[in-house]
Amino acid sequence: MTAFPDVPVIQYEGPQSDNPLAFRWYNPEEVVEGKTMREHLRFSIVYWHTFRGTGSDPFGPGTALRPWDDGSESVDNAKKRAVVAFELFTKLQAPYYAFHDRDVAPEGGSLAESHANLDAVADVLAEQQQSTGVKLLWGTANMFSNPRFMHGAATSCNADVFAYCAGQVKKALEVTHRLGGENYVFWGGREGYQNLYNTDMKRELDHLAKFFHMAVDYAKEIGFKGQFLIEPKPKEPTKHQYDSDAAACMNFLRSYGLEDHFKLNLETNHATLAGHTMMHELDYAGMQGALGSIDANTGDMLLGWDTDQFGTDYYLTAQTMLMILKHGGLGSGGVNFDAKVRRESHEPIDLFYAHIGSMDAYAKGLKIAAAIRESGELCDFVKNRYASWDEGIGAKIESGNVGFAELEKYMLDKGEVTANASGRQEMLENLFNKHIDRV
Amino acid sequence: MTAFPDVPVIQYEGPQSDNPLAFRWYNPEEVVEGKTMREHLRFSIVYWHTFRGTGSDPFGPGTALRPWDDGSESVDNAKKRAVVAFELFTKLQAPYYAFHDRDVAPEGGSLAESHANLDAVADVLAEQQQSTGVKLLWGTANMFSNPRFMHGAATSCNADVFAYCAGQVKKALEVTHRLGGENYVFWGGREGYQNLYNTDMKRELDHLAKFFHMAVDYAKEIGFKGQFLIEPKPKEPTKHQYDSDAAACMNFLRSYGLEDHFKLNLETNHATLAGHTMMHELDYAGMQGALGSIDANTGDMLLGWDTDQFGTDYYLTAQTMLMILKHGGLGSGGVNFDAKVRRESHEPIDLFYAHIGSMDAYAKGLKIAAAIRESGELCDFVKNRYASWDEGIGAKIESGNVGFAELEKYMLDKGEVTANASGRQEMLENLFNKHIDRV
Amino acid sequence: MTAFPDVPVIQYEGPQSDNPLAFRWYNPEEVVEGKTMREHLRFSIVYWHTFRGTGSDPFGPGTALRPWDDGSESVDNAKKRAVVAFELFTKLQAPYYAFHDRDVAPEGGSLAESHANLDAVADVLAEQQQSTGVKLLWGTANMFSNPRFMHGAATSCNADVFAYCAGQVKKALEVTHRLGGENYVFWGGREGYQNLYNTDMKRELDHLAKFFHMAVDYAKEIGFKGQFLIEPKPKEPTKHQYDSDAAACMNFLRSYGLEDHFKLNLETNHATLAGHTMMHELDYAGMQGALGSIDANTGDMLLGWDTDQFGTDYYLTAQTMLMILKHGGLGSGGVNFDAKVRRESHEPIDLFYAHIGSMDAYAKGLKIAAAIRESGELCDFVKNRYASWDEGIGAKIESGNVGFAELEKYMLDKGEVTANASGRQEMLENLFNKHIDRV
Amino acid sequence: MTAFPDVPVIQYEGPQSDNPLAFRWYNPEEVVEGKTMREHLRFSIVYWHTFRGTGSDPFGPGTALRPWDDGSESVDNAKKRAVVAFELFTKLQAPYYAFHDRDVAPEGGSLAESHANLDAVADVLAEQQQSTGVKLLWGTANMFSNPRFMHGAATSCNADVFAYCAGQVKKALEVTHRLGGENYVFWGGREGYQNLYNTDMKRELDHLAKFFHMAVDYAKEIGFKGQFLIEPKPKEPTKHQYDSDAAACMNFLRSYGLEDHFKLNLETNHATLAGHTMMHELDYAGMQGALGSIDANTGDMLLGWDTDQFGTDYYLTAQTMLMILKHGGLGSGGVNFDAKVRRESHEPIDLFYAHIGSMDAYAKGLKIAAAIRESGELCDFVKNRYASWDEGIGAKIESGNVGFAELEKYMLDKGEVTANASGRQEMLENLFNKHIDRV
Repeated sequence: MTAFPDVPVIQYEGPQSDNPLAFRWYNPEEVVEGKTMREHLRFSIVYWHTFRGTGSDPFGPGTALRPWDDGSESVDNAKKRAVVAFELFTKLQAPYYAFHDRDVAPEGGSLAESHANLDAVADVLAEQQQSTGVKLLWGTANMFSNPRFMHGAATSCNADVFAYCAGQVKKALEVTHRLGGENYVFWGGREGYQNLYNTDMKRELDHLAKFFHMAVDYAKEIGFKGQFLIEPKPKEPTKHQYDSDAAACMNFLRSYGLEDHFKLNLETNHATLAGHTMMHELDYAGMQGALGSIDANTGDMLLGWDTDQFGTDYYLTAQTMLMILKHGGLGSGGVNFDAKVRRESHEPIDLFYAHIGSMDAYAKGLKIAAAIRESGELCDFVKNRYASWDEGIGAKIESGNVGFAELEKYMLDKGEVTANASGRQEMLENLFNKHIDRV
Repeated sequence: MTAFPDVPVIQYEGPQSDNPLAFRWYNPEEVVEGKTMREHLRFSIVYWHTFRGTGSDPFGPGTALRPWDDGSESVDNAKKRAVVAFELFTKLQAPYYAFHDRDVAPEGGSLAESHANLDAVADVLAEQQQSTGVKLLWGTANMFSNPRFMHGAATSCNADVFAYCAGQVKKALEVTHRLGGENYVFWGGREGYQNLYNTDMKRELDHLAKFFHMAVDYAKEIGFKGQFLIEPKPKEPTKHQYDSDAAACMNFLRSYGLEDHFKLNLETNHATLAGHTMMHELDYAGMQGALGSIDANTGDMLLGWDTDQFGTDYYLTAQTMLMILKHGGLGSGGVNFDAKVRRESHEPIDLFYAHIGSMDAYAKGLKIAAAIRESGELCDFVKNRYASWDEGIGAKIESGNVGFAELEKYMLDKGEVTANASGRQEMLENLFNKHIDRV
Repeated sequence: MTAFPDVPVIQYEGPQSDNPLAFRWYNPEEVVEGKTMREHLRFSIVYWHTFRGTGSDPFGPGTALRPWDDGSESVDNAKKRAVVAFELFTKLQAPYYAFHDRDVAPEGGSLAESHANLDAVADVLAEQQQSTGVKLLWGTANMFSNPRFMHGAATSCNADVFAYCAGQVKKALEVTHRLGGENYVFWGGREGYQNLYNTDMKRELDHLAKFFHMAVDYAKEIGFKGQFLIEPKPKEPTKHQYDSDAAACMNFLRSYGLEDHFKLNLETNHATLAGHTMMHELDYAGMQGALGSIDANTGDMLLGWDTDQFGTDYYLTAQTMLMILKHGGLGSGGVNFDAKVRRESHEPIDLFYAHIGSMDAYAKGLKIAAAIRESGELCDFVKNRYASWDEGIGAKIESGNVGFAELEKYMLDKGEVTANASGRQEMLENLFNKHIDRV
Repeated sequence: MTAFPDVPVIQYEGPQSDNPLAFRWYNPEEVVEGKTMREHLRFSIVYWHTFRGTGSDPFGPGTALRPWDDGSESVDNAKKRAVVAFELFTKLQAPYYAFHDRDVAPEGGSLAESHANLDAVADVLAEQQQSTGVKLLWGTANMFSNPRFMHGAATSCNADVFAYCAGQVKKALEVTHRLGGENYVFWGGREGYQNLYNTDMKRELDHLAKFFHMAVDYAKEIGFKGQFLIEPKPKEPTKHQYDSDAAACMNFLRSYGLEDHFKLNLETNHATLAGHTMMHELDYAGMQGALGSIDANTGDMLLGWDTDQFGTDYYLTAQTMLMILKHGGLGSGGVNFDAKVRRESHEPIDLFYAHIGSMDAYAKGLKIAAAIRESGELCDFVKNRYASWDEGIGAKIESGNVGFAELEKYMLDKGEVTANASGRQEMLENLFNKHIDRV
């Protein structure tokens, strides 16, 4: 018996099927640039939205129909839910999943009890991973929901909270290690401030850095080799989140000597809330050698909060995959669907529509990106645009052999610069459309 | 004869005057926290908006009535304009001014001619500084208006443009040095991109860093000891400006080994366009040891472009001065009015209303900030809020003597954290109002 | 015994007290422009945030300590809570309160049971109003929290939901009438759409108009003479709320012949989410004869969601009161604190800090506005600015005696317009500050 | 000899060509839903951006290379420019163009001289229309650039300015009429305010309404039968534009009895600056019977000003065309490219890339929209979603036979509503992608 009795069996009829539930673009075995789509995309389903999201919002409680869930916070319910989760992962052909400690197992009355609950559910997760072949992309700890974290976790003004978090992350790291997690993520949660009037920002960031150094030390101690990732977000729930964007994260890491131990987990909707395109954040992280993984979703550009919608826009997915290919792929990271079905999409089947549509969109994005790269049109245009740096005065500057005096003399002699060529933005936008049409 | 024949003589009747042209709060000689207001505030008038701004906008040409200006781009007109400028600086009791090279002197037909024009006007500036006692806060080079900079300056895809900029900054540094400028500022201008499709961001940033290193070397060569400043701004004129906010600037400086040579010049409207409060950017820069100077203006929080309005909001000015006092003052920096009168405020007298009102608002802000500090109410609240870090487990963590294992044990024994106290945001907002009322 | 055992007794020491809990500006008996502050401001406390708000947000459950509340959804708990509410209203010297049906009494298992619950609690409310003298500013119905309203209330695609709402509003109107409510408010809740793909906007708005006509008819039937109000908000919880701003509300009312029966309840944070200042929305509504009441709060201008913070900014409160005085006062409306303490301000005393600080800020705003009006400076400036319309060609145009042909002739003869005077925006901003200083 | 000597001849090789200059989707003769693409799309080129835009921005002067233009403000230059314009219109296969009076002919030293200049150039336009077959979509008057309009045009505080505008619009109407213009557009320009402190909004709007009534009267007098259009925009150049969005425009028209004489000209980037999707504004206008024409462009969703980029996003163009088809087409309106090439796209060929790419994108959008409609999938989904209104209680409500009392009784008997079905937002987004893929 399956957990989704009312759900039509998902038939993967391949591209161009008329069945809206079928994949049209995502064929895990299809080879693109020498690797299968499965290897490129490394799709991951998130436990929190997909199995713990209820559809609640600030104006009303949950709506989601989840017949397999008895609504209780019991360990027993948590175990049953885990089995259903792997059924979905498998049906969606997703090779990975990701979780917070408190998503998979209920919080107990004490830290000790919470540890025990997590261990109990981890047994089921281990078993399910074994039987289905689905793997753990990353684990993390929820250090923002419980009221104890109201003033932050490692940046709380309350030192006890830091200590609590140390115990919680220690356990989450152990469980992630046990389950073969390929990364461990820190999303800032409430690491930030609501109001600078009551905040000692410097002291809070010193504490945060100390916490990360402890995590690095402990990972070494237990032999966890997964990649540590931090996840930029500029605001929400706090007014200012310390990890506001890729640049702010990198400056924090550099300021505290952590840059060799952490990469970034970039999320689309977080990028746009920070005023950046996802393409920018990806290129920035790649340029800094810090592109770790992505949380694949989208915001509504006219709304100012984190809507975490499923991304289906081909421009977004093609730009995303273009940057990932440019910077050599995601390594141990993945395309993790940190996205939720809308409050009004409250039936189980909506989970299928949502994931399949977005997986397809990323798969098409991959194919568009590969086609653009294969044509060489964009790459050649950019290369030619900087041709003046490959010889003459440009080459001299790059080689470091000249200073202000030599350059002034060069230009005083020349009088005016060689004329600029057009940036051709409109032509390049057309070129993008051409490849969307052709794939 | 004065340059402002139609302008009522400005009478400084001191605080509380009924004359809207009189200062009510700004008394340069008044002592606050052991220094005069003149020393704290170091007000500076900008040449570009105040003497070269015309009131043009994307929908229409200039409106400003400037009877002293014949509208020509002649060196002679530039010299006469400079004399008028110092009359205004003096009447406004502003101890400093700031300029771009192309504001004070017209661009010539070649780099050599532009150099000559700048030298000619610099003679007048030197003379006026001497006769009035007004000093140069900082100089800078306009490397964004001329079409040659359409693709950027030091980040242009055209290597010639980099060379041109080297010559231009070399000269601007020399003139700034000659005039005793206390700082030299780099605002990004068009250092950024309109579209990532045609951009090699990494190569452009490598060039920018190289340019800054050349500037550092050349300053050393000529003995210029002023502070180098870079100025964060997230967008406009380009879609993405590389120096997007304080954190992005610091990460750039750290990435290229420039952090010992540069501080930040923070502008209010740039902060808010980046999604940050000015208070945040100031505290961030201060925390990083990089608070250099401020461009004092304000945006309209409902508009998405740089309006550069004169700031008159007491919350803004008090928060700004609170952060400046907290981080030990502005050093060689100043409160520089990078602000413009509205297109519809096109008469010369509007220059007086605008500057006097904003100088007053910063002066009151200084007094509010000092009163808050003197009362100790805010400072004590913050200190107490972090008291758990001054002893017990907090002190142990700060001293670096514990790791995850010890902290987990501590919390397993304790079971739950000591209860959190309220953050009292509303009370602190009331406290702020109380001090506005009392000053 | 009081419900606030841990709360220091609130001592009203009058303006300038050192006790942060005391009013400094709000003196209900003080006379301004011929009326007491109590009569001008008509402060109202909201039941939902203040007595049902828990501090939950999308990232965590509630934090609020409310010792008088047993946390159950029982009618008995609801009755006890009501008594505590009136204690707070009285201590805060608030003459009014406002509620949703489901705030004061729990939802039952059927519409009939919900009706009965509301009646039972209304008995207590009636009794408390009687004993304390606190009155009901307005009632309303919560038609957005329960999952049945997921697709809207009167605009739901499900006709049953419309019928349910009819029954619910009928009852809420009856209870509001019984309790002497002076207004009845419709806030759109989920009347809007998440996605136009699945929405028939025209049909939904036809239904909404029909619903409002039924409400008007039923009020007449039962003799309810209170003012009907609709409340603009542009987004949240839905992507697009039909009542997006004052203009959209008025166009809806005019399109369906409802403009004589409804006025507007304007909320600060809703105005700013729509891209407008509160001052604009007030002036617009006043100009349209539709200024009904205000929800007094503030947003964070850098955040894109409804933060519903307590407003303490003197510019906001002075502008608000200036518009209210300009348009003849609030009539049967009031200054209703639709605001919530932050999640981190979770102690009962924070309710006092928050309300007292904001009441003070509106009281000072009233005094600033009255001072500006008494000085005549602003009013005279505006009058003079339009002087050309009081005589000559302006007067002819206003009187309707000329058309394009006459005006063309006038200008062909004249050649060019009489020169424009400066708009003096900066001077007027200084003038505003002067009055803040003096009050 | 052509005006574009350096421009490769544009070869229309039909869909799927490898030539980036060729149309791939726009085939004017192709029939969709019973009409040719030319008839559906009614493409129009704007004179202002394409022939008068220089690439200037607030940070620098123009960059555009326009070899046919001598840069002077002479009538002779204006006449030569007009001939080149029609060459471009023709090569782009655009059946329409649009202009402001001051775009096509220079402003003179008096109103009379300006009239004469316009007449002189209109002769050339008439001749060119005749010889090429290109027609005038609409005319309008530029009443925002000249400093005389600094405080607005018909809403100026200066009555002379109103009179000047009357003369100017009278002439612009006559010329539009002479040239067979199918519409006449009012875009608000500076009709709004920078600051409410100095503004009498009611008086200004009364004047604006009076102006529009005069325009209606004069059109009748001269027999101009074209459609009057007003164009919503929320901000820029003024802080608040009176015509802020479709709803605000409609409420203004209804308030002053103008709703029978005006429809709306909707612009994409104006919609998004107002916080709405273009799809919303189109559906809103259609629902109000006021969909007149569109200004086809796009903004950058992360920038807060009017970028007027050429739209190439298939989601935007398909949604736009879906709404236009839904509401019966554009009538006398058109798809008017109110868009400009970027400052860095300064070569003549960029005008081709830009227009052809966007024409193609709208043509593909039309085909996607038609395919969605032909499949019936979306339309049927929406119809079924509201099925409860077609019978039973829903039908009774729509027919107006029931009130609150009957509906309450119905629901008291029933107890709870029939369960809601999912809104299926994610499925519908996938459906959209399916049609993008298939067209």
